[in-house]
Amino acid sequence: MLRVFGLIVVSLALLALPALTQERQSTLDGFTADSARAEQQWEEKFRAMPLPNNMRDAMQRLAAHPHHVGSPYDQDNANWLLAKFKEYGWDAHIETFKVLFPTPKERLVEMVAPNHFTAKLQEPAVPQDPTSNQQAEQLPTYNAYSIDGDVTGPLVYVNYGVPADYDELDRHGISVKGAIVISRYGGSWRGIKPKVAAEHGAMGCLIYSDPKDDGVGQGTVFPDGPWRPKDGVQRGSVADMPLYPGDPLTPGIGATDDAKRLDIKTAPTITKIPVLPISYGDAQPLLAAMTGPMAPDSWRGGLQISYRLGPGASRVHLVVKSNWDLKPVNDVIAKIAGTSEADQWIIRGNHHDGWVNGAQDPISGLVTELEEARAMGELVKQGWKPKRTIIYCAWDGEEPGLLGSTEWAETHADELKQHAVLYLNSDVNSRGFIGIEGSHALEPFLNDVARSITDPEKNISVWKREQMAEIANANTASEKDEIRNRQNTPIGAMGSGSDYTVFLDFLGVSTAGLAYGGESGGGIYHSIYDDFYWFTHFDDPGFLYGKAESQTMGTAVMRMADADLLPYDFTSLASTVKKYEGELESLAQNQRDQIRDQNREIEDGTLVNSSDPAETYVPPKHEDVPPYLNFAPLKNGVDALSHAAERYSRAHMHAMQNGGAAIAQASLASVNQKLYMCERSLTSDKGLPGRPWFKHQLYAPGFYTGYGVKTIPAVREAIEQKNFQLADEQIGIVAGVLMKEAAAIDAASSALEGAIH
Amino acid sequence: MLRVFGLIVVSLALLALPALTQERQSTLDGFTADSARAEQQWEEKFRAMPLPNNMRDAMQRLAAHPHHVGSPYDQDNANWLLAKFKEYGWDAHIETFKVLFPTPKERLVEMVAPNHFTAKLQEPAVPQDPTSNQQAEQLPTYNAYSIDGDVTGPLVYVNYGVPADYDELDRHGISVKGAIVISRYGGSWRGIKPKVAAEHGAMGCLIYSDPKDDGVGQGTVFPDGPWRPKDGVQRGSVADMPLYPGDPLTPGIGATDDAKRLDIKTAPTITKIPVLPISYGDAQPLLAAMTGPMAPDSWRGGLQISYRLGPGASRVHLVVKSNWDLKPVNDVIAKIAGTSEADQWIIRGNHHDGWVNGAQDPISGLVTELEEARAMGELVKQGWKPKRTIIYCAWDGEEPGLLGSTEWAETHADELKQHAVLYLNSDVNSRGFIGIEGSHALEPFLNDVARSITDPEKNISVWKREQMAEIANANTASEKDEIRNRQNTPIGAMGSGSDYTVFLDFLGVSTAGLAYGGESGGGIYHSIYDDFYWFTHFDDPGFLYGKAESQTMGTAVMRMADADLLPYDFTSLASTVKKYEGELESLAQNQRDQIRDQNREIEDGTLVNSSDPAETYVPPKHEDVPPYLNFAPLKNGVDALSHAAERYSRAHMHAMQNGGAAIAQASLASVNQKLYMCERSLTSDKGLPGRPWFKHQLYAPGFYTGYGVKTIPAVREAIEQKNFQLADEQIGIVAGVLMKEAAAIDAASSALEGAIH
Repeated sequence: MLRVFGLIVVSLALLALPALTQERQSTLDGFTADSARAEQQWEEKFRAMPLPNNMRDAMQRLAAHPHHVGSPYDQDNANWLLAKFKEYGWDAHIETFKVLFPTPKERLVEMVAPNHFTAKLQEPAVPQDPTSNQQAEQLPTYNAYSIDGDVTGPLVYVNYGVPADYDELDRHGISVKGAIVISRYGGSWRGIKPKVAAEHGAMGCLIYSDPKDDGVGQGTVFPDGPWRPKDGVQRGSVADMPLYPGDPLTPGIGATDDAKRLDIKTAPTITKIPVLPISYGDAQPLLAAMTGPMAPDSWRGGLQISYRLGPGASRVHLVVKSNWDLKPVNDVIAKIAGTSEADQWIIRGNHHDGWVNGAQDPISGLVTELEEARAMGELVKQGWKPKRTIIYCAWDGEEPGLLGSTEWAETHADELKQHAVLYLNSDVNSRGFIGIEGSHALEPFLNDVARSITDPEKNISVWKREQMAEIANANTASEKDEIRNRQNTPIGAMGSGSDYTVFLDFLGVSTAGLAYGGESGGGIYHSIYDDFYWFTHFDDPGFLYGKAESQTMGTAVMRMADADLLPYDFTSLASTVKKYEGELESLAQNQRDQIRDQNREIEDGTLVNSSDPAETYVPPKHEDVPPYLNFAPLKNGVDALSHAAERYSRAHMHAMQNGGAAIAQASLASVNQKLYMCERSLTSDKGLPGRPWFKHQLYAPGFYTGYGVKTIPAVREAIEQKNFQLADEQIGIVAGVLMKEAAAIDAASSALEGAIH
Repeated sequence: MLRVFGLIVVSLALLALPALTQERQSTLDGFTADSARAEQQWEEKFRAMPLPNNMRDAMQRLAAHPHHVGSPYDQDNANWLLAKFKEYGWDAHIETFKVLFPTPKERLVEMVAPNHFTAKLQEPAVPQDPTSNQQAEQLPTYNAYSIDGDVTGPLVYVNYGVPADYDELDRHGISVKGAIVISRYGGSWRGIKPKVAAEHGAMGCLIYSDPKDDGVGQGTVFPDGPWRPKDGVQRGSVADMPLYPGDPLTPGIGATDDAKRLDIKTAPTITKIPVLPISYGDAQPLLAAMTGPMAPDSWRGGLQISYRLGPGASRVHLVVKSNWDLKPVNDVIAKIAGTSEADQWIIRGNHHDGWVNGAQDPISGLVTELEEARAMGELVKQGWKPKRTIIYCAWDGEEPGLLGSTEWAETHADELKQHAVLYLNSDVNSRGFIGIEGSHALEPFLNDVARSITDPEKNISVWKREQMAEIANANTASEKDEIRNRQNTPIGAMGSGSDYTVFLDFLGVSTAGLAYGGESGGGIYHSIYDDFYWFTHFDDPGFLYGKAESQTMGTAVMRMADADLLPYDFTSLASTVKKYEGELESLAQNQRDQIRDQNREIEDGTLVNSSDPAETYVPPKHEDVPPYLNFAPLKNGVDALSHAAERYSRAHMHAMQNGGAAIAQASLASVNQKLYMCERSLTSDKGLPGRPWFKHQLYAPGFYTGYGVKTIPAVREAIEQKNFQLADEQIGIVAGVLMKEAAAIDAASSALEGAIH
C-alpha cells in the first residue's frame, strides 16, 4: 500500500515538471516579445489583487434585501455600485430605462376536484437564515409576463413541456385542449413551456420543481443542506424571449422615456395563457390526484406517487393577475479610457438585479467584476495604460428579460457596432470546473486565458483540471485519447439566458463567458433562499472560485485591451462551422430515415401490433418523406471560410515570428478593426426567419429550447420544423454570410500582410 | 384522417397475405411429408382444446390457501394434481423427498439510533381480497436459508449489492466491515446480496423493495392497482444457489430418506450473515435517517428522501432465528408412454409450491401445463400415439431452491442421462410477448413452434408480434433492418431461477422455456397479494395468454415426441458459440484497456484532480495490466464445431429432401439418440471451477449474478475475476469440450448418412 502510494508520488513529480513547463507561456499571442513581458508583469500583479473578503463583504451588502427591478434596494444597489466604481477611479454613470415589468396582484391555484386543495404559493422564512423573513420586500412567487387569466380545467402532466413531450401524449391519445398543463422545470427554458402548451390548445400552465431534479432527491434540503425545500419555488420570466429579449414594448430600440412603445395588448412576447410556478409541496396533491395512463419511465420524478398523464380526476382553478406598470432599470456603466486604440472597446458585464435577495444569482458574479474593477483601478494608479477602452457594466433587469443590457445596447447600437471589440459576460459563479463559451474565433484566446489561471483547490491550471475531468468522465479509451491529444478544449456556442445576448445576436459583437461550477450543488435558484446565508454555507464559502473568476475575467479583459494584434483565430471558427454543416446533413438524413422507417412501421402494422390493447395507443400519422436538400452552397461557403482562415493564419504566424518583430513598428489599428468587425459579418440584417431581432447566423437560442443554443439556426430549425422550402432558402442565405465572412477575413489578411511588409 | 386510415387498412391487407403464406408451414422439420400431415392435424386438434375457464378454476383451487413447502395445502395440492393427471388418463404418482427448509421463529428489525423504530415485517390483509387474511397459514416475510443471527451495527446503503457497487463505495472511502448493509431488490438475484456483503465484511443484510423499481413509482398499488403496496414484502431464498441448487444438505444426490446428509453447520449454501427482506414502508425510516455522502444518481430510488450511503446516524438491530427442520417435498410425476421410441423421454415441468398463495408464481404456469395434460389425454383417447414417452411434472419446493426438481433429477440421474431428450419448463406466465430461451441447438425448432401460435390479442403469430415489438423498440434503422432480415429470433441462454437448472446444468439435457409477458406489470412477487384476486384483476384475467402458453408448450412437446428425426440444428449452436468466443476476446481486451487507462489516470493525477475536495474520494489502486490470453484453442474448437455442424446440416437437408423420402423407411432410433446426446457432450464431469455441480460448459447462472446467465462461464468468470491463469486453463478445457461436441455431432452425421444411404 505504502509502496504503491510512493510510486504514485514519484510519478506525479516526474509528470508535473513538463506539464508546468508546457503551461508556462513564454510568448503571448498578439503581443510582441516586449509587450508580452510587460503584459505578463501587469497580469501577474493583477491576479494577486482580488480578495475573497472583499467579495464576501460586497455580497453581504448587495444581497441584504430583495433587489428586483423597481424595488428600493435595487436603486440603492445601483447607487452603491456607482460610488464603488468611482472610488476605484473609474469614470462611471447610471443610465436609466423604462420597461414593462408586471408584478403580481392576484395568484390562485386550487384543486376543485376530486378533492379541494389550495396551493400555498408562499416560501416560509427559516429562523437561522436572517434575510428569509423579509416578506414585505419579496416579490411573490410568480412567472413574469404571464398574461392575466382566470381558468378552470382538468390537469394534464406534460413532463418538461417540450414539443416531443406532446408527441408522446399524442401516442396515448391525450390532448391538452381546454386543459391546464402541469410541467416540471427543466428540459428547456421555462418560457418554452407555456408557449408550447398554448400552441397545443392548453388554457393554463403550472410549472413545478420536481424533487428528483431540484429538491430532496438531490440532497439535504435548505436550511440543513443546499437543496430546494418542499415549499421552495423557482420564479422567472416566461416572456417569449426567443422572439426578442428586452422590454416587450420596445423591440430593437432603447426603452428611453420618449421611445415609441407597442400597446401591451399587441406585445408578442407576453404569454398566450396564464402561468404560475409552484413548489413540489404544492404540486404533490395535484399530481397525486391525477388519473389516466402512467407517465413513461423517463417522465417520472421524485415524488413518492404514481406519475399519471391525466386528464382525469384532477381539476384545477388558476388565477393570475398583474400590475402592468412601467418600471425603471438602472444600468451602472464605468470606463477606463484607452490610450492608443481608445475607440476600440472591451466591454464586460454582470447584472445586479435579483429575483429576491439573489446572492448566487447574480451577486456571486457581480462581486468578482467589482474586485476586477478595484484591481484595475489600482493598476492604473501604478501606471498601467491599456491600449483600448475598458467598459464595465452592472446591468439591471436581467431577470425579467435581459432588460438593462438589451435596452442599453439597443440605445447605443450604432456606437457599439463601430467600437465594440468584445463583450465578456459573467453571471452565477460557483465552485468547480471552468466552463467556456463564446464566439469561436476566440477559442484559442480563451483557452490561453484558462491556461493562465491556477485552480484554487488543485494547484494546477483550471484548463488542465477541466481537461482531466473530461478524461475521467469519458467512456471509451478513444474518447479519452481524443481529449488528451487535442490542442484546445472546444468552447461552447452561446444560446441565451444572460446579458451577452444583445451583443452577440443583435449586434454581432464577439462575445464570451467564462465561469466556474459543477461542484457545489443546490436548489435555491430564483427563490428567497438564494441569499448570503445559503451562499456562504453551501456554495463557495471562501470565495476561492470568486477569486479565480476575477483572475480569469480580468486576465481576458487586460489581454484583449493590451494586445498589439487582437488574438483572433479563424481556423477554429472555420472548423467549427464545418462541423455544424456536417451536423445539418446528418440531421436531414436521420430525419429522412426516421420518417421513412416510421411510415413503414405504420403501414406494416409493426407499431399497432407492438402495442398493448389494454392501453390506448394512437400510432403517428403517415408523413411525406423529406426531400434531399442542396447543401452545396453551404459547403462552398465553409470552403471559402476555411481558405480565408488559413490565409489569415499564415499572415498572423508571420507577423508573430521573431518576437513579433514585424509588428513592433507597424500601425495595426486598422488591422485590428478589421479583425473584430469579422464577427459583424456573421450577421444578416434580416435576421432569422420569423424573428428578425436575431441577426447572427451561427448562433441563436432555440425557438423551442429558449436558452439552449441552435447553431446555424435558420437552417437547423427549418429542418427540425420540417419546412424544407425554408431550409433550402436559408442554406443560400447562410452560405452568403459565410462568403461575406471569408471576404472580411481576407480584408484583414490583406491589411495585416500590408502592415508587416 | 379517415383517408389515412383507409390507406393503412389496404396496405395491411396487401402485406398480410404473403406474411401468412410465409408463416404457414407446408413441411415440418424432422417429419416426412406423411407424418407432417398427421402431426399437423393432431396439433391443430390439440391447439383448439385448452380452455381459459378450466385454467381459471384450477387457479382458484390451487391458490385458495398458502401452499409453501411443508404446508398442509401444499400436500393437498399435490394430491389434487395427482388425481387430475389420473383423471386425464396419465400414469401418475407422487415422489417425496426430505429437504432442509428453514421457517422463521424470530424476526426483528429495529432502528436503535438516531431514533427508535421497529419494522412491522407484516403484510396487512386487504378487505376486497378474500385470501389475503389467511395469516395463520402464511409464511412470515423472510429470506429462507439465512443463517441465524443477532447483530447491531450502522447501516450502509449498497444499492443492488453487486460487486461493482462495493467498488463505488470504495471510491467514497466507505467500508461495510461491521456494518449492516441495506440493499434494494433488483440488479442481481437476491442471494447474491448477502453473499457479496459477507465477502466484504458486513455482519447483516436487509433487502427492501424500492418503490421506483417495484411499488408506487411504477403505478397504482394493490388493491387499487397491480403494484406493490408500501407494506408488501418480497420473500425468497438466499441460499448460495450458484454453488448448487436443491437441498443444501444433499448436493449432487437425491434427498431420499436414507441419503447421506451434510451437517447443517457445514452446509456451504446457507448464508454467512443474517438476512431479512423488508417493505419500503419499513425501509423508509431507516434510509431517511442515514447520513454520509449522497448516493450516486443511479442508486437513488423512489422514496421521497435523499439517498445517502452511510455509515452514520442510522444504527440497526437485526435478529433472525429459524426452525431448521427437514420438510417433505412432493413431486407429482405423470407419464404417457411412447410407442416406437418409448425410451426417449420428453419432459415438461412447472412447480406447484408457492411462497404464499402464489397465483401468478407458479399457478399461472401450472394451470397451462394441466390443460395440456387434459388435452393430450383426450388426444390419446382419440388415437394419438406419440413416438416418445412424455413425462409431465409438477414440482414441489421450487421457491426455496429448486428442491423438488433437483432432488428428483439427482435421484434419477442415470436414467435421465440415458433417456431425456428435452426438458421444457414453464413458471410464471402473463400477458404480452413470447420470450424464448434454451439450448441453442433448438433455436430453429423453438422459432418454428412460435410461428405456429396465434397471438390472442393481435391475430398474427406470436413470433411475428415479438419481432415487431423488437423492431419498434430498436433505436437505429440498421438495427431494425437486422431484425427484419434475420431468419430466426435469437433465443436467450438459460441462467437459473427455475426448475430447468438441474436438467441443463447438472445433466446436460437440452432444455427450453417459452412464456409470455411484458404487458401486465405488477408488484406482488412473493407476497401475500400474489393470489387469485390479484391475477384475475390485473394480470391475464381472461387467461388468453394462459391458453397461448398451453398451445405453445403442448405444440413443442408433441412435435418433439412425434418427430421422425429430432429437429436439432447445430449451426445455430456453432454460430452462437462463435459469438460467445468473440465476446470473451473483447472482454479481455476491454479489461486490459480499462486497467491500463485507469493506471494512467491514477498516476497522472487525472482522477484526484477531477474530484471535489469537499467530498472524500479514494482513487482505485494500481492494478497489473492483464496479460494477453491464448484464445487459439477456443477458436480451433469453434472451428471444429462449425465444421461438424455444417456436415450435419447437409446430411439433415439431404434426409429431408423430397418429403423426407430417404428417412421414411429408415430406422432413426440410434440417430435420434446420438442427436439428443450431443447436449451431454457440452458438459464436463469436473464441472465449473469451484462449483463442480455445474457441468455445462456453455451456460451457467453467474457466480455473482445468481439468475443471470454467464456463457462459457468458466472462462468468462475467470477473466471477470482477474484470475488469468485459471482463464488460460479453462480455455483449454472448454476447447476440449467443443472438440468432444464436434465429435458427437460427427457421429450423429455418420449415423444419419448411413441410415439414408
